Amino acid sequence: MTNTYKNVYIKDAFTIGGPYEGNGPLGKYIDKIYKKDLYFGEPSFEKAEIKLLTESISMLLKKAKLNDKDIDVLISGDLQNQIACSDYALRSFDIPFLGIFNACATSSEGIIIASNFIEGKKAKKCIVSTSSHNLASEKQFRNPTEYGAPKPDTATFTSTGAASILITNTKSDVRIESSTIGKVVDMGIKDVNNMGAIMAPAAADTIYRHLTSLGRKSDYYDLILTGDLGKYGKEILIRYMKEKYKMDISKNYNDCGYMLYDLDKQPVFAGGSGPVCSALVNFGYIYKNLKEKELKKVLIVPTGAIFSPTMVFQKETVPAISHAIGLEVVE
Amino acid sequence: MTNTYKNVYIKDAFTIGGPYEGNGPLGKYIDKIYKKDLYFGEPSFEKAEIKLLTESISMLLKKAKLNDKDIDVLISGDLQNQIACSDYALRSFDIPFLGIFNACATSSEGIIIASNFIEGKKAKKCIVSTSSHNLASEKQFRNPTEYGAPKPDTATFTSTGAASILITNTKSDVRIESSTIGKVVDMGIKDVNNMGAIMAPAAADTIYRHLTSLGRKSDYYDLILTGDLGKYGKEILIRYMKEKYKMDISKNYNDCGYMLYDLDKQPVFAGGSGPVCSALVNFGYIYKNLKEKELKKVLIVPTGAIFSPTMVFQKETVPAISHAIGLEVVE
Repeated sequence: MTNTYKNVYIKDAFTIGGPYEGNGPLGKYIDKIYKKDLYFGEPSFEKAEIKLLTESISMLLKKAKLNDKDIDVLISGDLQNQIACSDYALRSFDIPFLGIFNACATSSEGIIIASNFIEGKKAKKCIVSTSSHNLASEKQFRNPTEYGAPKPDTATFTSTGAASILITNTKSDVRIESSTIGKVVDMGIKDVNNMGAIMAPAAADTIYRHLTSLGRKSDYYDLILTGDLGKYGKEILIRYMKEKYKMDISKNYNDCGYMLYDLDKQPVFAGGSGPVCSALVNFGYIYKNLKEKELKKVLIVPTGAIFSPTMVFQKETVPAISHAIGLEVVE
Repeated sequence: MTNTYKNVYIKDAFTIGGPYEGNGPLGKYIDKIYKKDLYFGEPSFEKAEIKLLTESISMLLKKAKLNDKDIDVLISGDLQNQIACSDYALRSFDIPFLGIFNACATSSEGIIIASNFIEGKKAKKCIVSTSSHNLASEKQFRNPTEYGAPKPDTATFTSTGAASILITNTKSDVRIESSTIGKVVDMGIKDVNNMGAIMAPAAADTIYRHLTSLGRKSDYYDLILTGDLGKYGKEILIRYMKEKYKMDISKNYNDCGYMLYDLDKQPVFAGGSGPVCSALVNFGYIYKNLKEKELKKVLIVPTGAIFSPTMVFQKETVPAISHAIGLEVVE
């Protein structure tokens, strides 16, 4: 399902990162960095993540000079089972709530739902939020693998942080121009330490359908930005697009998981992952580049491995999904 | 956020239940019943649930004489961690997918998203699906409580089954007339064996906002139907609406969790729960009543306790949410 929009704008965003994200090359573009540890003053990793998500929403409202009552709906999801981080963060707000889950593609799902609501005149102001927490994820997904056990180079590192975006029907610097909802793709891979390979075909399918549905070539966009395939998944995507779809995206393509950290200096293996990874890059760095017109048209393609430990223990393969969103400078 | 719709219709539905649902008073309204056990020929409870959800989608497509390509988007969620049931079921279909989670209110969230897409002309045909499985849920949510331990009368029984609904922009017998997105409500209750009490205030808030936003009295609807508060939650809601909002809903109100089973004869404690509980009642029984014009206007109000075992182990209370949808006969 591919749609175009005429009246959907990003009004503002508020991003928060932890120490690893702050020390990465894009740290200066993140609105607030917690430098000390991954507890942020809370008694558990899960509550630490709830604190960040809650803060990203309240800081966004403050920055935009809005109250809870001004927001029609808040759409949020995260990696905690039952999207508990979003559920519990929303207790602090008097805002209607829709909970979503598409793993690390969650932010794109939320933006598409909000964009369709706004373009269809069903809402005027929506907030889309997401978060992840490195150690809340390690605890939930890596168990019973012993913490600290060696990981292969293809493993990714769940980013810590939260991001909230205000999407409205009133003109601003950057607009949401188009979107494509992705399909579940499963190439039969079981290696949970190679999520890039799992997700690349889902990203390829979505990018291909997005471009062909709208009659566009890949160079229509200044940048195509997947998130979060990492160093190896990125190479797989370039090859896969060339071989399967005869499209060369190598010149204007990058990946959020690859960009958020310094892979040579930081202990992140193949790069970042987690729903907030692409959200920090897209709504920290890229959004600011668009506002300053350094980029004019960007296709963001958050990617998610919809990985269930229960299913993998039952010897199942890991499916993936990816949604695409076209962002454009308003001239 | 409350919306009304002029061009959103329920074209068809396909519901599947297990032996308990089949033996209940509404069993004859469920399209397909599995009578033998809760494995349905699969090696695990999780895969058993995936089988039902997959079948509900393929049988709905068959009944409506449609192919995967005819569907713009499928919106689905369930109780398995990472909504794994929906993720894995969707591998069998070539349909764009949005994953959602609002616990037992999930079906209403999906219907609201689909209705807004259709009314806003962003989609023409959407499928909304949900499922739950009694033993997959017991395994995931009740651990480490020993299976078979006594439960209090206020406990509910997770329903087993799957339901898929086809929502379109082409005229049919029953239309989706209005919706209200709910807010997260937390009254400070920690007793996970009393979900009815946890969810009743969320249902009350949504019903009140729905009626007042649209300038309606509660008797505007032939029936207001929460799901799934159960026997005790139902009584709490009636009292709560009277005391807090000065509204008497006792004459035209019932609850899906209370209706799906025979509480005197079946071992379901206070009644059914799980996302498919209200979906089986609403899209088995109620939808058929609307098609036959026995009911003309029904407000369905699926309710969800967005309960996270991890958060409850951390001594947190349980939040709840509820969304309302107005269904009407097309005259």
